[in-house]
Amino acid sequence: MFHRVNQLPIELPLLEYGDANAASAVQELLGGKFGEMSTLNNYMFQSFNFRGKKKLKPFYDLVASITSEEIGHVELVANTINLLNKNSSFSAPPNMTPLQNGKNMRNTQSFIASAQTSLPFDSMGKPWTGENVFSSGNLVLDLLHNFFLECGARTHKMRVFEMTDHPTAREMIGYLLVRGGAHVVAYAKAIEMATGLDVTRMLPIPSLDNRMFDQANKYEDRGYGNVLFTWNYVGDYEDINKIWKGTHPITNEPLIVQQGAPKGYKIPELDELPEEFAPGIGPEEFQMIAKRLMANI
Amino acid sequence: MFHRVNQLPIELPLLEYGDANAASAVQELLGGKFGEMSTLNNYMFQSFNFRGKKKLKPFYDLVASITSEEIGHVELVANTINLLNKNSSFSAPPNMTPLQNGKNMRNTQSFIASAQTSLPFDSMGKPWTGENVFSSGNLVLDLLHNFFLECGARTHKMRVFEMTDHPTAREMIGYLLVRGGAHVVAYAKAIEMATGLDVTRMLPIPSLDNRMFDQANKYEDRGYGNVLFTWNYVGDYEDINKIWKGTHPITNEPLIVQQGAPKGYKIPELDELPEEFAPGIGPEEFQMIAKRLMANI
Amino acid sequence: MFHRVNQLPIELPLLEYGDANAASAVQELLGGKFGEMSTLNNYMFQSFNFRGKKKLKPFYDLVASITSEEIGHVELVANTINLLNKNSSFSAPPNMTPLQNGKNMRNTQSFIASAQTSLPFDSMGKPWTGENVFSSGNLVLDLLHNFFLECGARTHKMRVFEMTDHPTAREMIGYLLVRGGAHVVAYAKAIEMATGLDVTRMLPIPSLDNRMFDQANKYEDRGYGNVLFTWNYVGDYEDINKIWKGTHPITNEPLIVQQGAPKGYKIPELDELPEEFAPGIGPEEFQMIAKRLMANI
Amino acid sequence: MFHRVNQLPIELPLLEYGDANAASAVQELLGGKFGEMSTLNNYMFQSFNFRGKKKLKPFYDLVASITSEEIGHVELVANTINLLNKNSSFSAPPNMTPLQNGKNMRNTQSFIASAQTSLPFDSMGKPWTGENVFSSGNLVLDLLHNFFLECGARTHKMRVFEMTDHPTAREMIGYLLVRGGAHVVAYAKAIEMATGLDVTRMLPIPSLDNRMFDQANKYEDRGYGNVLFTWNYVGDYEDINKIWKGTHPITNEPLIVQQGAPKGYKIPELDELPEEFAPGIGPEEFQMIAKRLMANI
Amino acid sequence: MFHRVNQLPIELPLLEYGDANAASAVQELLGGKFGEMSTLNNYMFQSFNFRGKKKLKPFYDLVASITSEEIGHVELVANTINLLNKNSSFSAPPNMTPLQNGKNMRNTQSFIASAQTSLPFDSMGKPWTGENVFSSGNLVLDLLHNFFLECGARTHKMRVFEMTDHPTAREMIGYLLVRGGAHVVAYAKAIEMATGLDVTRMLPIPSLDNRMFDQANKYEDRGYGNVLFTWNYVGDYEDINKIWKGTHPITNEPLIVQQGAPKGYKIPELDELPEEFAPGIGPEEFQMIAKRLMANI
Amino acid sequence: MFHRVNQLPIELPLLEYGDANAASAVQELLGGKFGEMSTLNNYMFQSFNFRGKKKLKPFYDLVASITSEEIGHVELVANTINLLNKNSSFSAPPNMTPLQNGKNMRNTQSFIASAQTSLPFDSMGKPWTGENVFSSGNLVLDLLHNFFLECGARTHKMRVFEMTDHPTAREMIGYLLVRGGAHVVAYAKAIEMATGLDVTRMLPIPSLDNRMFDQANKYEDRGYGNVLFTWNYVGDYEDINKIWKGTHPITNEPLIVQQGAPKGYKIPELDELPEEFAPGIGPEEFQMIAKRLMANI
Repeated sequence: MFHRVNQLPIELPLLEYGDANAASAVQELLGGKFGEMSTLNNYMFQSFNFRGKKKLKPFYDLVASITSEEIGHVELVANTINLLNKNSSFSAPPNMTPLQNGKNMRNTQSFIASAQTSLPFDSMGKPWTGENVFSSGNLVLDLLHNFFLECGARTHKMRVFEMTDHPTAREMIGYLLVRGGAHVVAYAKAIEMATGLDVTRMLPIPSLDNRMFDQANKYEDRGYGNVLFTWNYVGDYEDINKIWKGTHPITNEPLIVQQGAPKGYKIPELDELPEEFAPGIGPEEFQMIAKRLMANI
Repeated sequence: MFHRVNQLPIELPLLEYGDANAASAVQELLGGKFGEMSTLNNYMFQSFNFRGKKKLKPFYDLVASITSEEIGHVELVANTINLLNKNSSFSAPPNMTPLQNGKNMRNTQSFIASAQTSLPFDSMGKPWTGENVFSSGNLVLDLLHNFFLECGARTHKMRVFEMTDHPTAREMIGYLLVRGGAHVVAYAKAIEMATGLDVTRMLPIPSLDNRMFDQANKYEDRGYGNVLFTWNYVGDYEDINKIWKGTHPITNEPLIVQQGAPKGYKIPELDELPEEFAPGIGPEEFQMIAKRLMANI
Repeated sequence: MFHRVNQLPIELPLLEYGDANAASAVQELLGGKFGEMSTLNNYMFQSFNFRGKKKLKPFYDLVASITSEEIGHVELVANTINLLNKNSSFSAPPNMTPLQNGKNMRNTQSFIASAQTSLPFDSMGKPWTGENVFSSGNLVLDLLHNFFLECGARTHKMRVFEMTDHPTAREMIGYLLVRGGAHVVAYAKAIEMATGLDVTRMLPIPSLDNRMFDQANKYEDRGYGNVLFTWNYVGDYEDINKIWKGTHPITNEPLIVQQGAPKGYKIPELDELPEEFAPGIGPEEFQMIAKRLMANI
Repeated sequence: MFHRVNQLPIELPLLEYGDANAASAVQELLGGKFGEMSTLNNYMFQSFNFRGKKKLKPFYDLVASITSEEIGHVELVANTINLLNKNSSFSAPPNMTPLQNGKNMRNTQSFIASAQTSLPFDSMGKPWTGENVFSSGNLVLDLLHNFFLECGARTHKMRVFEMTDHPTAREMIGYLLVRGGAHVVAYAKAIEMATGLDVTRMLPIPSLDNRMFDQANKYEDRGYGNVLFTWNYVGDYEDINKIWKGTHPITNEPLIVQQGAPKGYKIPELDELPEEFAPGIGPEEFQMIAKRLMANI
Repeated sequence: MFHRVNQLPIELPLLEYGDANAASAVQELLGGKFGEMSTLNNYMFQSFNFRGKKKLKPFYDLVASITSEEIGHVELVANTINLLNKNSSFSAPPNMTPLQNGKNMRNTQSFIASAQTSLPFDSMGKPWTGENVFSSGNLVLDLLHNFFLECGARTHKMRVFEMTDHPTAREMIGYLLVRGGAHVVAYAKAIEMATGLDVTRMLPIPSLDNRMFDQANKYEDRGYGNVLFTWNYVGDYEDINKIWKGTHPITNEPLIVQQGAPKGYKIPELDELPEEFAPGIGPEEFQMIAKRLMANI
Repeated sequence: MFHRVNQLPIELPLLEYGDANAASAVQELLGGKFGEMSTLNNYMFQSFNFRGKKKLKPFYDLVASITSEEIGHVELVANTINLLNKNSSFSAPPNMTPLQNGKNMRNTQSFIASAQTSLPFDSMGKPWTGENVFSSGNLVLDLLHNFFLECGARTHKMRVFEMTDHPTAREMIGYLLVRGGAHVVAYAKAIEMATGLDVTRMLPIPSLDNRMFDQANKYEDRGYGNVLFTWNYVGDYEDINKIWKGTHPITNEPLIVQQGAPKGYKIPELDELPEEFAPGIGPEEFQMIAKRLMANI
């Protein structure tokens, strides 16, 4: 089972202007083959399907706990996309064509279907699909897949970073490069535990250090690259410390397991958008709603 | 952000024999258009994309907290599928054709791709897709969608129940009919709050009572149909009590909001399956792995 | 615009028992790449998109009028599938597993999603898709496509005929082989008009005569292979007689254009199926519904 | 069976210039999940699959007759798209790159595949799919679905209206908002008949009145929002008057059932486009074609 | 089995600047329904699946040998796309946003997924799919399909030619129009052999001569339109000369079968792109790689 | 460019009886995510898209030459499927229902669409898609992908082997396990060259030796596991010997590069199937065809 806290793992910068096409590009990191929906669902299904959970508990704990973090990453990228859509339209009666900008943007369905927010689609508008989930049941093969998946995800993040300098997008990518980097190392360590081969020696893939990306520095400095969280407060998944130990292959910092989750930050408020009828509740309607919500039944 | 606890919301019966084609049918409840992947992702994205979270907090809290429960439902259905595959093959060297039964079963990819476990696919083997997510941003329309989605999901659960009498499948469906029933009412109540119209008067859809389904009775008796959980222990999402109040339209029991999550149960161990090379760790390899896992670095 | 009459073009035999897997096979003729959804939508979009409707009116009239017939063919195949599902389940309370047969049938979604009726899917359960529509705007190329499409559709009908001897399926296929044969000739004639080349000389493709298929004989005898209908009663589309003229290349019968539509037959009643909750209206509910329907407002 | 008349339900404005990206946006209303292909095929398959046609005739008649109108809506949107593509290219020999504008437009396949006309695709170029059809066989659930579908379709139409001020697009949307509004009420009335609950009290969804959209006014004034047609001239489907009765919940006008179809208007001629080889018939070829078409055989 | 030579069939012009959106358009000729992936895989599977290879050897030889040429066409279009992407980004550290142009281009995945190179996708970013393969086993029907496919492929090439005047794209299209023209005739001749009907009399479809396309002239002059190659040097597939004989229906030149393959040209070198980390091998890394590659083991 | 020789790399056993459901399972090895269509197209596109072909020639040569072998593997699996369908139907007039067995088999489209032969589909009937191609341009990442892909492909082959004991299927799989094993090592060696890390130490994945699979032994004995071919006779791709050197990590045999291709064997003749109208050429028609083929023009 999963619990939820109403927080994001970082503070997303709130800007006056967004960039709708940047939002579209960032969709790749959400619903693309190497986006967060893929990392989430791969680890989620692998944790459900794990054969030999007791005997191989540290491996199960690793996949199971990272799953939990990935839902939060999906949430973080979605929130970023939503902020990136700011000011892509204007408030006016329908006859004034207030969504006219949307017609020439790359993601028209953002304007038509989702009121300028995120959907589980990639940067070309193709939906995320269950075909992206790999869960063979063979431990070494699944770990190898995850190691590859994280390297691919890292590559895509780096390239989207290079496509937009919007501060909200970059803050999110900076953070995820660091956390993704930790996950790359985690699966590399797991492969080493399972096979004896130290695949961290191939890292980083691609060969650029996270510190080449401005917004990643802050999180590297704070040690976010060296820690794994258990995402649990009652002792589950603690055996990840049998895998996540020793030092980080790139930073040489000691690897730390921290029970629970990282410090959380406020989820940004998302403005009402009358021209999208979202949420579509006018002042009068709201008054009546408020009355009903407050009523004792 | 999301936390994880290593438990299921119910105790799944462990039987000696499974039924591979029943497992295939149950896949519809996991990865079908009306399966748990759909309820999860609809509410997840609607919660990410919610415009006016403050002003309309009770509605946001409702969608956000149910999201959390749905991940656990995905987990529950996945575990059921895994148990339903028991004894669909036998342990023997490859030359003895140990997976021969799989050739004539409805879900051959279960044998080839996932070592007889779950994948985000429907009962025909088609992958779940992001096209199944509806998130219009219009509050009333999204609630109407969710109300319809839950009624559709209920229908599919009832029909799959009628397709197999395997106790593990039925236990899971019995429980989910009760929880799904609660969610139907929850979205109906939310629509009433938003529009003033009491749509619970249409319920149940289909018109059969949950008590027509043997395994649902136990959970109805325990009151699982009258409670909503916040899935959080620090006070988030508590405003669902502004919507979830009064009495249940069918049972007439008082509606209760409970902070946190329901009591949890052990996740079933999933046997190693040598004929699937899952997890594929022999005794010698395991010894070396154990040594590495225990080593201090 | 289109009008509708509540009739089928033939009388479908009503049998006591169906054959669920035969129904699945017949789905190929409905939602497959060469099924009726494809012929319908190809001609429909080509008629919408036709450039030079005035100058090339006989060609436009041909594509536009056949469109109309094809909707009726979709209807006919759908009705056949529905009849073929008869007796695939039994009426009993859910606990008695009344849909148990469905678990091992080829189309489980027929039992879960559509209450044992038709959907726009092929025989493998894959949905029909707009990718199946070809509408290049080049007259000769579109006609060549249609000629090929009809030959492919004929081949698939012949093969499905060979897969099941269920009388309802065969009656429908027998009729459609004759009408499809007429359409093959129609597009061949159109190509001849457009290019001067008499491609009817290639026919039939495959080389078997319709009369090799028992149930086709009746319709050949009645002359259904030699006539084109305008599917209109006010004089539209009459210029098809500039193309549909001369004699039939195989039967040598004179080709006839008939204004309007063929004689119609009763659409079969489809039984209520309580185990599918379809329509799910019990006696008491029905009484109240009847009262409301009869009420004067 | 279906008949066809060579008319559109409204007169589409013919302008000198189109707007290729507006055409792309309008594609959402044709082949999107909430486009006319979806409304058409949902009602079409529900009418084919209806269990208990006699007993529940007014409901069957409703779904069956609206199907017929929806084909005409597909036709209307397709014609609009075709007109919106006007002047997106110029006539010149291939070496002059006459389709150069298409390279940077949103729908390149419109230029490559369909000669700048419509295809059953959405605004992102994804094909319409049979997965969009819901036909559960449960009367209340199917009606609830249709009610939701029409509200979703209305939302998309309103948003596309806001994306383009091209008069042809707006005329079509204005009309369809009014007719779609009638269909929303029709399914709401049907739900009321089936369950006793007056869901029209939720309307309109979104809460904007049609009269906020300039081009809708004309059709509201003409009473198009208060009438249902039987789309049949021999008495079929007349029992819709058992559902469509009383007054319109928003306009308070009396609801009227009209046998047959609305007044029809000329289908716009679509220009030949030599740079697309559409129809690709030069003067000499045409002369020979004309001769063959006129010949007596 | 297939062999490979490191050459292209023509010399592609190397320009200083590319055109990323032209590259996107050309993707239609690679991974579209009528692109080279389709011609390749249709003929490949038809050759694998051919029933009666001995008895109908000339037909088998035709389909089998053209398969081989089509792989080279896939290669040629892919190389063209790669060259067309030149200078779409600039070399700079990630913080300088070196891929910023990609954000507004039509194919964002080219920038994110493939380092500005080709993928088996169409011009809208949709993947090529096996649904595009037709292999009925009926000789006449398969040949008719191939004849239609080649005419459709020709149409798409002509239209993409009209969308871009980039010399690299046009050189490739010029050549493929000529070779595609030869294949159209080849399948027409095969149909004549199989049925006696001379379908070359319909050609060309569309009715424009290849010589209307500047870059095709050179290859027409060199006789590339009149020759079929066996793509084999040990005598396989030589019976294509039983079909490819007589004169070309348009040029009236004698048809020639040439053993083996056409003269080959150098495959263009593709520049390293540091901003895409492709290949991502820095000078130091290269030195170590070179040492390892040279080492004797 | 590619040449073709009319041979398979092994001699496939020809049996009297096939097994249609085994054929369906084997489709996974053809058109599945880890089937031969995937290995082929991944290496093919990576070779087209390779940046720095000169500088990194040994890597380019590796990917480019293996591409060529993979086309032959697609051919081999396709031929196996075709042989596995033997005797799945009987020869009789259509009225005798000669394809009746097909109705209950797992791949109905094999009977309806392809005359019981192969198509680029997986074991569930889903088409192969271009989404399966990974081509990032980053050398290390692409090699890591290929290493993973080959391990996944090996796993699927091993599992399909365990599903059927049909000698034709097993002969093919035995051979491909050996060749696939060689490719696993090849990509491992390439990673070692690129990064210095000897990943062969993880092998085999899964941990079973090829010799556990009876039919693999013969090919292991013949040394097929230790050789790479250049698939070229004029010196291209010879630099693979800079990577493929030293000894095999499992067999310890010296690794050998062999110019050209392995010895070839006859492609099995595929019987005519009159009940599928494949090829559909009767004796009289054949006589006329033969005459035309022999005619001098």
